[in-house]
Amino acid sequence: MTPRERFLAACRKADVDRPPAWMMRQAGRYLPEYRAMRAGKSFLDMVHDPAIAAELTLQPIRRFGMDAAVVFCDILVPPAAMGVGVEFVSGRGPVLTPAVRTAADFDALHDFEATEATGFLAETLRLVRTELGDERALIGFCGAPFTVASYMIEGQSSRNFEHTKAMMLGEPELFDRLLDRVVDVSIPYLAMQTQAGADVLQIFDSWGGALDAETYRTRILPGLTRLVAGAKATGVPVIVYANGGGHLLELLASTGTDVVSIDWRVDPRDAIARIGGKVALQGNLDPCTLFAPPEVVEREARKVLTGFEGPAGYIFNLGSGILPKTPLDSVEALWRTVLGRELDTIPS
Amino acid sequence: MTPRERFLAACRKADVDRPPAWMMRQAGRYLPEYRAMRAGKSFLDMVHDPAIAAELTLQPIRRFGMDAAVVFCDILVPPAAMGVGVEFVSGRGPVLTPAVRTAADFDALHDFEATEATGFLAETLRLVRTELGDERALIGFCGAPFTVASYMIEGQSSRNFEHTKAMMLGEPELFDRLLDRVVDVSIPYLAMQTQAGADVLQIFDSWGGALDAETYRTRILPGLTRLVAGAKATGVPVIVYANGGGHLLELLASTGTDVVSIDWRVDPRDAIARIGGKVALQGNLDPCTLFAPPEVVEREARKVLTGFEGPAGYIFNLGSGILPKTPLDSVEALWRTVLGRELDTIPS
Repeated sequence: MTPRERFLAACRKADVDRPPAWMMRQAGRYLPEYRAMRAGKSFLDMVHDPAIAAELTLQPIRRFGMDAAVVFCDILVPPAAMGVGVEFVSGRGPVLTPAVRTAADFDALHDFEATEATGFLAETLRLVRTELGDERALIGFCGAPFTVASYMIEGQSSRNFEHTKAMMLGEPELFDRLLDRVVDVSIPYLAMQTQAGADVLQIFDSWGGALDAETYRTRILPGLTRLVAGAKATGVPVIVYANGGGHLLELLASTGTDVVSIDWRVDPRDAIARIGGKVALQGNLDPCTLFAPPEVVEREARKVLTGFEGPAGYIFNLGSGILPKTPLDSVEALWRTVLGRELDTIPS
Repeated sequence: MTPRERFLAACRKADVDRPPAWMMRQAGRYLPEYRAMRAGKSFLDMVHDPAIAAELTLQPIRRFGMDAAVVFCDILVPPAAMGVGVEFVSGRGPVLTPAVRTAADFDALHDFEATEATGFLAETLRLVRTELGDERALIGFCGAPFTVASYMIEGQSSRNFEHTKAMMLGEPELFDRLLDRVVDVSIPYLAMQTQAGADVLQIFDSWGGALDAETYRTRILPGLTRLVAGAKATGVPVIVYANGGGHLLELLASTGTDVVSIDWRVDPRDAIARIGGKVALQGNLDPCTLFAPPEVVEREARKVLTGFEGPAGYIFNLGSGILPKTPLDSVEALWRTVLGRELDTIPS
């Protein structure tokens, strides 16, 4: 069973020899080779340069041999292609200008041809695919409508989402149109990624957990369900992730997605009981665990693997993206444990 | 029924004429009279000046006539009294120096006499009590052991709590000793508040929701339960609040607290079904709702009141603290709705 076969089988809830595994944000700053390549370049410079982005995508695979590579990109690429200025400001995160808060702001957005405006991503995926061959899975992704729209409305990361929720409650039609438009552009954007070589598509609702279940069900779920259907129509399995979404599991599973990715706050047994009959599961080691000594990382990773044991359909992952300052020896302990072999035996 | 009688009855799950109501952080920056009084002073200057702190505590009562006043103070007062430098830096929040990360850092902490080191708070409470008489309830508070300890370990607000979790996993004895010590100093600190006039004590586990339930149960709950018992031993009802704690409700209710305060992500009917037989409930309007137009605020507030209708034992509140930039006309709409009367009829 190749890593790619293992990954795709787990998405289908078919039998596997061991759980396939990868890490959200695995092409990232915790890797010394990432930091070396980044020197002097901005984050978006690297995203827009297919040779660099492909190399960054492959770095963690070369070092650790995960079953899947996740393309080096960002969920704010579609808003940028719609005409929003996107910048990554050190210590502050993404800054989007202008923030989309009025009908005029909305009307100033434009649709885009995925193959043209975001052709750099297609090229990155083709380069990675060539390198991986059929051996490993390649994951493409986009942000979920609520998460992308909230970045556009807030203009930056937010703890509280007051502008987003004010629009949702106070200008419901504008809010719904914005979410719909994000879905409209995201479907061809995902199709482009599948055509360029992605085997799997993940939809990140990083901020969906900020909403109660009833609001999520009535205001967010229809658009998300349409996006999942559009992603599935490209012919590959789909993973939906929501951080802080323990109260949304049934809703996420109802979208038609193949896999639901859960954070560390959700007990694996609870997730299996609630939605394991319907979808495969992905998760959920707390990324902060990797700041503990290697022997603790090993123990905690085994606990996660054990927690998900049993029914078919499980992909090992962290509960959210790996953090930039994560010590490398703990990451090594993680992959020794999860892959069940010494790292020096991993093909480069 | 006076507001105070109404409030204390709801804590005991006894009958009330209408749900008592207050807002977390109601003495805060959304009020023009707060901003006027603050001009040129630091947050901690105001906390340490009983005349000012008492006036700030009373400002929202004078304007809106909530059933309870919550003393103007901060959950980081005990760490400061233990010898940690605490500063509030504009745009960054609290900064604690030195952060407590080693046994030597821990040994440098000292215990304190609540009546001496934090006598300013006793004086504030006495001043407020004198002003309120028996008419309205007065709420004292402290941080829960995990929340206070995580501020001490991180040295600031944190999104991920990597240092806290690294210590919890990697140096479990040091972590447990730190939580125990926070409980040790918090019990006499709460007793001092009751003696100075607090009718009710709220324990804020603002960051508890960052942990999974099993970790919370084994590592956090014993200390929290001891703190609740210590608070109850002062003779007043206790409220426990955890933000993002929807997966922890049963654990919070098991501490012996009288009231569990829930955030907006938890469905009121779900909370009633899960723990309403055991404790009274408080919550849970999303504070972001107050950024919507007044008529929407009114509709959403009624929805919350309806959601909690039925069994006795409910206190209206927001799901977390009111945000600094909240528009005043929405706050007015909220209190007109919740108190069921025009604001100009409120006694000043």
